[in-house]
Amino acid sequence: MSFTAAIEKLDAVRQKGVYRHSYSALLTDLYQLTMMYGYYKSGRMNQKAVFELFYRKNPCGNGFAIAAGLEQVVVFLTGLQFTAEDIDYLRSIQLFDEGFLEELRRFRFTGTVYAVEEGTVVFPSVPLLRFEGRIFELQLIESACLSFINHQTLIATKAARIVQATRGDMYDHLHQSVEFGLRRAQNADAATFGSRAAFIGGFAGTSNVYAGQNFGIPVVGTHSHSWIQSFPSELEAFRAYAATYPDRTTLLVDTYDTLKSGVPNAITVARELREKGRELLGVRLDSGDVAWLSKEVRRMLDAAGFPDVKILASGDLNEYVVRDMMLQGARVDIWCFGTALITGDDCPALGGVYKLVAKEEDGMMIPKIKVSENPEKITNPGYKRTVRLYLEDGTATADLIMLADEKLDPSQPLTLFHPIHTYKRKTIRNFKVEELLVPILQNGEIVYELPDLEQIKKRAESQLDSMPREIKRPINPHSYHVDLSEKLWELKQRLLKEARNGSI
Amino acid sequence: MSFTAAIEKLDAVRQKGVYRHSYSALLTDLYQLTMMYGYYKSGRMNQKAVFELFYRKNPCGNGFAIAAGLEQVVVFLTGLQFTAEDIDYLRSIQLFDEGFLEELRRFRFTGTVYAVEEGTVVFPSVPLLRFEGRIFELQLIESACLSFINHQTLIATKAARIVQATRGDMYDHLHQSVEFGLRRAQNADAATFGSRAAFIGGFAGTSNVYAGQNFGIPVVGTHSHSWIQSFPSELEAFRAYAATYPDRTTLLVDTYDTLKSGVPNAITVARELREKGRELLGVRLDSGDVAWLSKEVRRMLDAAGFPDVKILASGDLNEYVVRDMMLQGARVDIWCFGTALITGDDCPALGGVYKLVAKEEDGMMIPKIKVSENPEKITNPGYKRTVRLYLEDGTATADLIMLADEKLDPSQPLTLFHPIHTYKRKTIRNFKVEELLVPILQNGEIVYELPDLEQIKKRAESQLDSMPREIKRPINPHSYHVDLSEKLWELKQRLLKEARNGSI
Repeated sequence: MSFTAAIEKLDAVRQKGVYRHSYSALLTDLYQLTMMYGYYKSGRMNQKAVFELFYRKNPCGNGFAIAAGLEQVVVFLTGLQFTAEDIDYLRSIQLFDEGFLEELRRFRFTGTVYAVEEGTVVFPSVPLLRFEGRIFELQLIESACLSFINHQTLIATKAARIVQATRGDMYDHLHQSVEFGLRRAQNADAATFGSRAAFIGGFAGTSNVYAGQNFGIPVVGTHSHSWIQSFPSELEAFRAYAATYPDRTTLLVDTYDTLKSGVPNAITVARELREKGRELLGVRLDSGDVAWLSKEVRRMLDAAGFPDVKILASGDLNEYVVRDMMLQGARVDIWCFGTALITGDDCPALGGVYKLVAKEEDGMMIPKIKVSENPEKITNPGYKRTVRLYLEDGTATADLIMLADEKLDPSQPLTLFHPIHTYKRKTIRNFKVEELLVPILQNGEIVYELPDLEQIKKRAESQLDSMPREIKRPINPHSYHVDLSEKLWELKQRLLKEARNGSI
Repeated sequence: MSFTAAIEKLDAVRQKGVYRHSYSALLTDLYQLTMMYGYYKSGRMNQKAVFELFYRKNPCGNGFAIAAGLEQVVVFLTGLQFTAEDIDYLRSIQLFDEGFLEELRRFRFTGTVYAVEEGTVVFPSVPLLRFEGRIFELQLIESACLSFINHQTLIATKAARIVQATRGDMYDHLHQSVEFGLRRAQNADAATFGSRAAFIGGFAGTSNVYAGQNFGIPVVGTHSHSWIQSFPSELEAFRAYAATYPDRTTLLVDTYDTLKSGVPNAITVARELREKGRELLGVRLDSGDVAWLSKEVRRMLDAAGFPDVKILASGDLNEYVVRDMMLQGARVDIWCFGTALITGDDCPALGGVYKLVAKEEDGMMIPKIKVSENPEKITNPGYKRTVRLYLEDGTATADLIMLADEKLDPSQPLTLFHPIHTYKRKTIRNFKVEELLVPILQNGEIVYELPDLEQIKKRAESQLDSMPREIKRPINPHSYHVDLSEKLWELKQRLLKEARNGSI
């Protein structure tokens, strides 16, 4: 990988409309700025620190998450600066002195960032990003980076759950899922970055044209009820649409009565198209008992000589409804998801956090721990790496979080133990090691060639293929092993003890 | 209101960073463009139509919603155009001819828009916006307008629910709610427009500095655990923060042990501040049993002579948790909400829709209805207005949807009837009438002076004050009356009959 290529790729990505309005440096929580001011006033602003971004619980009861949002973080960090208007605003709130505002005026992000690549299957407590830099800059960026990663990782994960439901199991790739969520998304960014994340998670296309333009996602669509209402009759409306797109017509058949009007009219139009050497592509069901209707419609289309006309289903579908419809033998070829996908539905947030794990003191990097009454909230301290361990057949078997300077010899047997229930142990042999964190920014400069979205989607697919089937179950999945090295585990116990003693 | 003032105000609003990157015209669903192409190809693109934006069900089990998002819609519509890049992209997907692309190149929004003002309390089936224009342009704008209104109305409503919970009833204004949601928001727009909507719904401040800058919302914040971890001890960290902000210090007391370490150290710092003639503002609880802790902390602070130090609570709070904590006698002064507010939590989408209600045919405006198997999904046809009827004591008693040319005489008794269960009737006398839809754009030109956010917030407050208490209950609220005029009801029945006959 050449640095030039990395820079050129970033420049190309920046040209996308969705990124061209560079993010404001004020997209942060006020306390980040007041802490920065405190570090500045106490002479600590240039002290080095290490923060990690990770989450504690898989979203939606899932057995994994799919990392997404890194590209947005890179665009954010490499473009970060305070404008004159930003400085004026900060002056107006009367919390900062001029010296500090001058520091902000000069501000550029100069930190070093490692991250798991987008499309990687990830698990609780595995660092998704590691940030190293001045505490001054690392505070500033926390809130926006969390928002980007939390959002896109959530939607990519929800998409993977939904796709899994439409496939029945992970090996049937016959059905397609497409995203129609724009109108119900939590504003424009949620719609567009949500489309991107859904594509990473396995969706085949989006209705959002802006997402298509920005990310090269295939754009798809049919027509709405208002099209039908705009014509004197349903048949005339269908004919007009078919005349517009003779090779790409999908007809919405539920405006008046699906079985008595919509499908018979669609069949009439399909016959007329066939006379001209064309074929109707599909019909869309958007209301009523879609599971039952889909079977009736399939029967009618088949009987009329149109076994290749696809059936699309839309209308408040989610992974649970789809699983149920599959059990009822629904005959749906293309599934269309809106609200449930684009908002996360029953799980609208991923609880990613950003925690200090090491801090410079007297020129030394000192590992830091955050204690809590709640054991799951205690952080893993220190400057760390994570490796994924694969068995000989290519199946991922565990992630191991270890201190950055620890060595691992894949030719030797390795005994892993559960970080809380330490009596739970397993020994693995002849394993393959994948380093999960790769360098992204070095002292603020890009050193990573941002992959195309298709590559990211492929990575997600191959990552999912490498995962044990049991962790991919949407309901009650097995827990994947995420273990700590003995050295890290001991460091954690020591710091925990010190922290508890120090607090009393 | 002068047109010049309206234009000047819009220009001022446009200067906000969050609006300055004008929205892409491609922020739409593909089918809007393919239908536009169909209208273009069939010579119908300039036919006039009327669409209404409304929702069918109050979000979150609430008894009402608070309309929000109109300013964003205005900025979107008045700046809407296709760039050369947009046209190139649309050419690349090979669905459109050059004549159509030329139409898009010349495209400007020239429609007329009426809307309920932001901050208005609204109900199912009441039109929030009415759009009149060429069907060509009204299709294009549907998806983005829905996203903006659905998102902001949802969050304003959720905010009102939460504020209601913190107040116990609607008349105790002692407690404040502030918004800390940026890190869990569904990307940048959701965070920033979510802050705006939360402020409209009754929140007092936000941690999101960008929202503060753009909308003039008061920005608030304390410090994080990493601040504490960055110092050799909690006490030193507290002292350093108090030295930075002697007049504005709130200390996070749960890093090590709230009662044994955090609060005693905070009291030490409070005493040191008082020696210098300053006062500690507050302490924040972010973990553990906050209901119980708040009472203990209040007792400790009072005993130490600090009855005015406020207690802030944060950490995955929502309206249900707050109500429960209130019942337990929690002593919280300032409530901080993140995830649950900024995502909508259990109700992450408002299901607003955009439906054709009238269409030009042979030079006449013909009312249109959309039928459905599902009775609630049948639309109210025609070009309509909505009035809110107030009793003499200022309480809102019903909304009446009527045809635009109908007259209403407030000096005569009025009998209202339920649009589905028509035997349910009530007669009101001496009522006051408020026209809910006000003119916003006239042939694409702004004719509405966009109010400041403070004015919108005040409108929401006074609107809530005018509503019967029973509909404001967060759980099992009464249904507010939204009735149709007899003339509209009869039109609906007639069209329904015609549609059903025509479809068989």
